[in-house]
Amino acid sequence: MSYTAPVKDMLFAIEHLANLEQVAQLPGLEDAGLDTATAVLEESARFNEGVLAPLNVEGDRNPSSWKDGQVATTPGFKQAYAQFAEGGWQGLQHPADFGGQGLPKTIGAACVEMLNSANLSFALCPLLTDGAIEALLTAGSDELKRTYLEKLVSGEWTGTMNLTEPQAGSDLALVRTRADRQGDGTYKIFGTKIFITYGEHDMADNIVHLVLARVAGAPEGVKGISLFVVPKFLVNADGSLGARNDAHCVSIEHKLGIKASPTAVLQFGDGTPASIADSAGPGAVGYLVGEENRGLEYMFIMMNAARYAVGMQGIAVAERAYQHAVQYARERVQSRPVDGSAKASVTIIHHPDVRRMLMTMRALTEACRAMASVAAAAYDASHHHADADVRRDNAAFYEFMVPLVKGFSTEMSLEVTSLGVQVHGGMGFIEETGAAQYYRDARILTIYEGTTAIQANDLVGRKTARDGGAVARAIAAQIEQTEGELAASASDAARSMATRLAAARQAFLEVVDFVVSQLKADPNAVFAGSVPYLMLAGNLVAGWQMARALLVAEKLSAQGQDAAFMQAKIATARFYAEHILVKAPALRDEIVGGGASVMALALDAF
Amino acid sequence: MSYTAPVKDMLFAIEHLANLEQVAQLPGLEDAGLDTATAVLEESARFNEGVLAPLNVEGDRNPSSWKDGQVATTPGFKQAYAQFAEGGWQGLQHPADFGGQGLPKTIGAACVEMLNSANLSFALCPLLTDGAIEALLTAGSDELKRTYLEKLVSGEWTGTMNLTEPQAGSDLALVRTRADRQGDGTYKIFGTKIFITYGEHDMADNIVHLVLARVAGAPEGVKGISLFVVPKFLVNADGSLGARNDAHCVSIEHKLGIKASPTAVLQFGDGTPASIADSAGPGAVGYLVGEENRGLEYMFIMMNAARYAVGMQGIAVAERAYQHAVQYARERVQSRPVDGSAKASVTIIHHPDVRRMLMTMRALTEACRAMASVAAAAYDASHHHADADVRRDNAAFYEFMVPLVKGFSTEMSLEVTSLGVQVHGGMGFIEETGAAQYYRDARILTIYEGTTAIQANDLVGRKTARDGGAVARAIAAQIEQTEGELAASASDAARSMATRLAAARQAFLEVVDFVVSQLKADPNAVFAGSVPYLMLAGNLVAGWQMARALLVAEKLSAQGQDAAFMQAKIATARFYAEHILVKAPALRDEIVGGGASVMALALDAF
Repeated sequence: MSYTAPVKDMLFAIEHLANLEQVAQLPGLEDAGLDTATAVLEESARFNEGVLAPLNVEGDRNPSSWKDGQVATTPGFKQAYAQFAEGGWQGLQHPADFGGQGLPKTIGAACVEMLNSANLSFALCPLLTDGAIEALLTAGSDELKRTYLEKLVSGEWTGTMNLTEPQAGSDLALVRTRADRQGDGTYKIFGTKIFITYGEHDMADNIVHLVLARVAGAPEGVKGISLFVVPKFLVNADGSLGARNDAHCVSIEHKLGIKASPTAVLQFGDGTPASIADSAGPGAVGYLVGEENRGLEYMFIMMNAARYAVGMQGIAVAERAYQHAVQYARERVQSRPVDGSAKASVTIIHHPDVRRMLMTMRALTEACRAMASVAAAAYDASHHHADADVRRDNAAFYEFMVPLVKGFSTEMSLEVTSLGVQVHGGMGFIEETGAAQYYRDARILTIYEGTTAIQANDLVGRKTARDGGAVARAIAAQIEQTEGELAASASDAARSMATRLAAARQAFLEVVDFVVSQLKADPNAVFAGSVPYLMLAGNLVAGWQMARALLVAEKLSAQGQDAAFMQAKIATARFYAEHILVKAPALRDEIVGGGASVMALALDAF
Repeated sequence: MSYTAPVKDMLFAIEHLANLEQVAQLPGLEDAGLDTATAVLEESARFNEGVLAPLNVEGDRNPSSWKDGQVATTPGFKQAYAQFAEGGWQGLQHPADFGGQGLPKTIGAACVEMLNSANLSFALCPLLTDGAIEALLTAGSDELKRTYLEKLVSGEWTGTMNLTEPQAGSDLALVRTRADRQGDGTYKIFGTKIFITYGEHDMADNIVHLVLARVAGAPEGVKGISLFVVPKFLVNADGSLGARNDAHCVSIEHKLGIKASPTAVLQFGDGTPASIADSAGPGAVGYLVGEENRGLEYMFIMMNAARYAVGMQGIAVAERAYQHAVQYARERVQSRPVDGSAKASVTIIHHPDVRRMLMTMRALTEACRAMASVAAAAYDASHHHADADVRRDNAAFYEFMVPLVKGFSTEMSLEVTSLGVQVHGGMGFIEETGAAQYYRDARILTIYEGTTAIQANDLVGRKTARDGGAVARAIAAQIEQTEGELAASASDAARSMATRLAAARQAFLEVVDFVVSQLKADPNAVFAGSVPYLMLAGNLVAGWQMARALLVAEKLSAQGQDAAFMQAKIATARFYAEHILVKAPALRDEIVGGGASVMALALDAF
């Protein structure tokens, strides 16, 4: 099944919703105008459609495999990765100082989406490398930067994040991996890490593991965790590769989806003779990043970048599933139309329920893309704007958006990929059709880089309650402004959207009040509603972007610009309002009126 | 992962919601009282927990396999099937005349649930045999009954349903399989059927295929379809097996789930020399069931039985996923409680969002079980009641319930099995954990035996519009009566339920009015809302049964009966009201206010 990057819709969001023109006025981003965006997206589309998309099914049928500590990736992945690195795609958003192209996230995010639509399993490798680069840029010493950054930015080496241990999933307080100080300022790392994406593979010469561990005597809990660089091969002073480090892949997981992406169990300092023989001795050599006991703080930098990227994965797999389903619905002939408009069986895209499913898939995907695009622009402004107040406001907005982009876009991807199977009917259940792969692949997205519940906790605690709901209410005020603009339009679509948007916004505000006022008094009730709150907020903010899109499309359509595209946008926005935004008030009712019943059942009654 | 049949909850539904005492007063069902129900359910639990449940994972890892036209089922299945037949489980609900036990559906349905919880893939074989038995009982000649029924009822032979062809999925008008009349009153069948569950296997000596085909000269479309019995082996006059029939399995599918269940492509009359050599010549010998061209009518008998059973599959896999998730949530230690009630990490069942997920799983499962149980009692009354009016009313109620039991219970099973994965976090994505199997297995349930859209069309057309909404409104009136009983209770739980139930009922009534009044004027808009209507109706009727359960539990609890169970039922019912019933009004808004936007996007804009 081929993939066609939705370049036009991406550019619409970038230009009209994320306001690229304003981004391109930020210091350091002057070259990143619409021409650049168009050129980059078109080139990205060519690469992802041509090179990576055809390998997606192959990765599912012929996953990465482990033998004697080595991981062989899917045939074709190594060559594709070489082309990826060669094309400079890893460095798209990274600083020119280290060989990157320094493009804004507003443009880069669209390329990330394409990469993930083309091949979710492949895309995880660059995604993790991005995180390692972010951490080193933020907290790495000059020597670490000098040694690793150029090779990572060029894609010559890849990066990993090592958080999870068998006894410590999302609960980093339980991390046990040990870091022993050595006389030369380095550390020796001992411990086992699990769920390490691309923790071992054959696509690059070296792998730069970023590892959370405890230095002897560190405080208990999360305040005693430090971050280390642990390369697979030590690096000589001249940049060439030295001894094999004592960090080994002892197995990879057998997973429901993203099968081409190796999920490794890594043993640091296993001390087996075989590994000592060709290594720098027992224990994996590690280099401290930043200061001791500040590892969690640095890891959050990587995680925040990764969380946004996982949100993009949700949008990406939803887009691919949508395209697959549309193609099937255009070809499959089944049953007469219910309105009697034909006397013979027609392609199923004519049937209202198939149309409802396709529209749901389309509307959710476009809305989340728009939301992510707007968040990316805020990220760029928060890093580049000349005015500190503007930077701060944009940072606050972006921070609020991260759990929504991650949580809502991935939850919606479960719904969209499931609908993709359903559109195919019985054929959807047959693996050869390909629809089931998206359903399986997507299922990890609401889990890794923090489950939806963890995103929701973040939204409740750090993003809503901590400032007394100020950012949340500021967003609601902006939405109210959009409602005013909708009211000024005479169209049915705008009026329909205005009504639903207002109801969703009011529901959101009631929930914000509930969260802020009840968090201390009744934390269980508030956290019982945390995921519904995230779903309500995500639905609202994504719907708001569809409302803005509707207004833009009406204006441009009236000016005679690309009428077919603009009419499609208006129809999709209206569908979103009438079928998706309408779900918001029920979430309010559930949160505000159902806090107690979540915890009411006695533990031993389960 | 072990399975414990929820016998207590099943008996609660059977006794107090389905009113078994009344069922046991029906002519012919006098022995089917509570003692019988208890004994049968306990024996069924022993068999399914002990024999079939342990084979569930094995079936996923070591699926049925095809070689040279033969299908080898998962190791252990053949022996387990022999025990199943030996135990008389196939004949539970079938007439004593043919060796069955003649138990009411009210009791049998619970056994069907257990069978499917224990092993969904295994259970499909008896499920299809049930359908074949129903068709023969209804329309088979005495000779066909004499030849096949006892062997099917005893489980010595198994049955299949052959509807689908490559060009004709749900659209039976397109069936092309040909039946040529022979001089001796038999027919020769030629054609290819796909998606034939247990179309070939090694668990029984003979397989009785029920096949839709067209006799030469028959009318076009669904009015020219006839139903045939096509046995794998012809049956001699003395009941012994004769020649191999020219009906062969040419391949089986590679599926997302229910992998142990072989999904066959069957070739009737392939005429290859090898098959002719040991068969009765080219063409598969078939025996007409009932009259020519009435095949669809008979097939609907099988399908209606099968649709209810697939609904039970949804409940069954949801129950199993729930039990698996609860067990994990009791064991997995992660993070401190949000309410500060402990200073150390606790098992995740203490976390509100995990609790919300588990309660959602539990409430949906119990509510759908209650709904199915009540529907089963109506089925029994519709077949056994002495009064024709009562039979007719119960038949109408049951007919209304079939699309809800099938559609709503299977759609909810997708949500529940997905939540089951989510509760497991990263471990849920690892196949060895087992949670992913339910997620994969469940995915077929909203598709086979008629997709949710097909159930929804049935609900809109035959079940709602045809009688002008009379049955729908009669159900709403009964619900209103329950609201009155809730209002009479002083408890918070009853009041909370009453409010949500009333809102959901009113939403339902508005949709019924919309469907009835708009179907002719705007069929696209009505069918665009058909699945949301089904979900609203299912949510309401299942919620109504939880409301009735709440009232019973309050009464029995006040009488000092099993207080822990009754309190749990009350808590679960209240959760259902506050977290699931609350979604009903949004569905109304979507259906009534969003009909036009479903079809608004231009076809070439997709």
